[in-house]
Amino acid sequence: MTTPRNDTTPAELDATLERAATAFPLLAGLAPDQRAVLLRTVADALDADADELVPLAMAEAHYPEARCRGELARTTFQLRLFAETLEEGSFLGAAVDPADPDWGTPRPDVRRLMLPLGPVVVFGAGNFPFAFATAGGDTASALAAGCPVVVKAHPGHPGLARRTADLVTTALAGAGAPDGTFALVEGMETGRRAVTHPLTRAVGFTGSVAGGRALYDLAVSRPDPIPFYGELGSVNPVFVTNAAAAARGPEILSGYAESATLGSGQFCTKPGVLLLPEETDLTPLTGALADRGPAPLLNDRVEQVFSDTLGTLADHPATEVLLRGGPTGEGWTPTLLRTDLGSLIEHADVLLEECFGPATLVVTYEDERRLLEVGAALRGQLTVTVHGEEADPLAPALLSLGSSLAGRVIWNGWPTGVAVTHAMTHGGPYPATTAPIHTSVGTAAIQRFLRPVSFQSVPQSLLPRALRDGNPLGVPRSVNGVHEQS
Amino acid sequence: MTTPRNDTTPAELDATLERAATAFPLLAGLAPDQRAVLLRTVADALDADADELVPLAMAEAHYPEARCRGELARTTFQLRLFAETLEEGSFLGAAVDPADPDWGTPRPDVRRLMLPLGPVVVFGAGNFPFAFATAGGDTASALAAGCPVVVKAHPGHPGLARRTADLVTTALAGAGAPDGTFALVEGMETGRRAVTHPLTRAVGFTGSVAGGRALYDLAVSRPDPIPFYGELGSVNPVFVTNAAAAARGPEILSGYAESATLGSGQFCTKPGVLLLPEETDLTPLTGALADRGPAPLLNDRVEQVFSDTLGTLADHPATEVLLRGGPTGEGWTPTLLRTDLGSLIEHADVLLEECFGPATLVVTYEDERRLLEVGAALRGQLTVTVHGEEADPLAPALLSLGSSLAGRVIWNGWPTGVAVTHAMTHGGPYPATTAPIHTSVGTAAIQRFLRPVSFQSVPQSLLPRALRDGNPLGVPRSVNGVHEQS
Repeated sequence: MTTPRNDTTPAELDATLERAATAFPLLAGLAPDQRAVLLRTVADALDADADELVPLAMAEAHYPEARCRGELARTTFQLRLFAETLEEGSFLGAAVDPADPDWGTPRPDVRRLMLPLGPVVVFGAGNFPFAFATAGGDTASALAAGCPVVVKAHPGHPGLARRTADLVTTALAGAGAPDGTFALVEGMETGRRAVTHPLTRAVGFTGSVAGGRALYDLAVSRPDPIPFYGELGSVNPVFVTNAAAAARGPEILSGYAESATLGSGQFCTKPGVLLLPEETDLTPLTGALADRGPAPLLNDRVEQVFSDTLGTLADHPATEVLLRGGPTGEGWTPTLLRTDLGSLIEHADVLLEECFGPATLVVTYEDERRLLEVGAALRGQLTVTVHGEEADPLAPALLSLGSSLAGRVIWNGWPTGVAVTHAMTHGGPYPATTAPIHTSVGTAAIQRFLRPVSFQSVPQSLLPRALRDGNPLGVPRSVNGVHEQS
Repeated sequence: MTTPRNDTTPAELDATLERAATAFPLLAGLAPDQRAVLLRTVADALDADADELVPLAMAEAHYPEARCRGELARTTFQLRLFAETLEEGSFLGAAVDPADPDWGTPRPDVRRLMLPLGPVVVFGAGNFPFAFATAGGDTASALAAGCPVVVKAHPGHPGLARRTADLVTTALAGAGAPDGTFALVEGMETGRRAVTHPLTRAVGFTGSVAGGRALYDLAVSRPDPIPFYGELGSVNPVFVTNAAAAARGPEILSGYAESATLGSGQFCTKPGVLLLPEETDLTPLTGALADRGPAPLLNDRVEQVFSDTLGTLADHPATEVLLRGGPTGEGWTPTLLRTDLGSLIEHADVLLEECFGPATLVVTYEDERRLLEVGAALRGQLTVTVHGEEADPLAPALLSLGSSLAGRVIWNGWPTGVAVTHAMTHGGPYPATTAPIHTSVGTAAIQRFLRPVSFQSVPQSLLPRALRDGNPLGVPRSVNGVHEQS
């Protein structure tokens, strides 16, 4: 199925961002619980249209139906969770410091509130056509913050993007959102123009290191640089200690095979490197991978990059091919490569590149303590996973290594499947993201689109209501730096 | 007094950052209350040396003694306030989401903690030789977060920087801080190398737009871009409504004169533009400014830039000179310029440039409602001040305009003097800062140097103690997104 291109013209983009800028103060001025209604209305509209949306996703992203239905459910759950976040109110960061003549600096009355940044441009991911795309996490968190959103449609699923955008636009209009609250634009050049457009105040991006870095470079080169929240790439290493391999080797290997091939290995959290003792019997892994049938990749471009990256890895003198997969008429079968710990460290620049697709690398070690040396070879990660036993002497050091490298550290589990919760971090140092102090999944993602504003000596009647004496909105606040008891 | 240059060599810088990187896990591993002890020890050492530090600051920055003593007191207060912040514990962002089979996505146990970024390079300001310099706010907040700090000494006060650094280093060593926790380096090229050094994880900067932008460009062009927290420039407009001018004109004008000439107008929060009704009698302002004696500027470079910028403003056909100040043997006397609202908007690119030094611009308006048009001409600001009456019809719109442009909105007061409190924001959209969602003053400044890490399914014994069941450290936490009652 081919959907004809429909690139947004520069004049259309200007008009779109002008509508977004006009909508901004109106959207920002809505009470949080009014914005919550908007998000729920969007979620309801998407759920109601599932039987139309899911086949579009299946056709354009080549995923099975269950995966698409599950991802849509995750997406509407996410919208509703941000509605709850708005109603709960902690995101406002409300803080009250009354005047204090005995303070260490002259101290007038100072009160802080988090306010939205302005129009946000969102680049959705190709591999999550719902949850990280048109109405995905970046869109949900920016709208929740009170920022109008202009989504640049992913070229991998233009039909789904358009239908989703129509539903979102109609739902928002029906719920009384300001005109310009949401829009879809198309075309690669349009995306670049949107990042450099004077009215754009922040960018959310999920995709490749190459694509994300190019757009990041545009955002930071503007006359007025703007925040660019890019979630780029990760190899998501999995460390297996001697004790864990001895206790649960086959179980770990079959779990790994499943996680590494979810979505044909096209997850940003795909475990790409498995480090385990050299005496481990790899049969459960090779067997499980060999049993996987072929699965199609997202699109020709993903397939080309995967084929090239895999070729470089497989041809590298430091690797051997334990299972040679490849393209069939119905997609790709998985490939398993192997190297040893010393070679991994020596050739980290090649062997620790993300290989997005159904391939993974086993790294065997002789001496467990050398696992810690891998830290210096690894760049920033979305996740680090440790399989160990609770009394494992190396466990604390591996968890500590993980927390220094990644935004999420997983114990005896798998990195695929990022729960949408309050305490979740989907982020990490570059190149996992371009903004290491943030998360793009979970309710804390809203913070990326809010800026603090402090009001000094402003009379009660002119203060935002969340900051007035007596806390008339009943929002969580800090007073003198301490959580206010309600 | 001239202090000889002592530029740090590239090899010395390498060694300094390697010591910082070695110190990092040790410093990060200290309990927050242990880091609080370090900060208090530094504060005590600086206070104890006041009689040596203050004369150095007076000689190098050309400020009077009272100003220097006050600023040192602010600096040590700030260090102690961050010690309290560490003991209070909210900065940890501790969050617990227990596993929940009924959640909308598969939800294992997920717990989040804020962890320090790593070695931070700090560029202090020339105009605040204590509070925004060697042991100033960036240093205090980064050390509090658990990040080793390498300060690039400001060339305007090298002697003070060295003595301060010696005191900090000795105090930290005496209190048991890891070797490498703090260091001073010198030289402009050293500063550039420090920003691009592979071991640097973030940069704090206070200074000019030109200098800050050049270093920002280096930070974001790295193979691995890092956060750059730059506080650059601002004209800090002051809006006076008809009603306020009628009620309190002379009082407002004399208050403005005092704020605009504090520190010879060398404050980043200096009010640079005063907008008021054209019928206002400006005598109280011209008189107060004419009564100011000459005051020396910080250094030759500041004087040169000020002289050039002022010349451009004064020679502009849209301005008239109401009071012509200039250089004398003992420093500069203040200059007062005037234009009208229409001209300001028409020539915003010249007339709304920051003029760092003793000069300020009065903008007169005929029609009060046109004040709101100035918003489109203004770039991001650290502060916007509104002088109005509580029932002023324009007051809500002016406060709203202020909150859209600036990090701090002041009512019937003055922007100079930034209280160090919990609810303070010293920040704003570019060019006020390079990081609009943060503050560089107040306890929230610590958040710039912390990144979230989530621990998934990690057993109790291996979790950071702040995240364990029962909250053994008694830190403020959220559980399921809601503040935990202790």
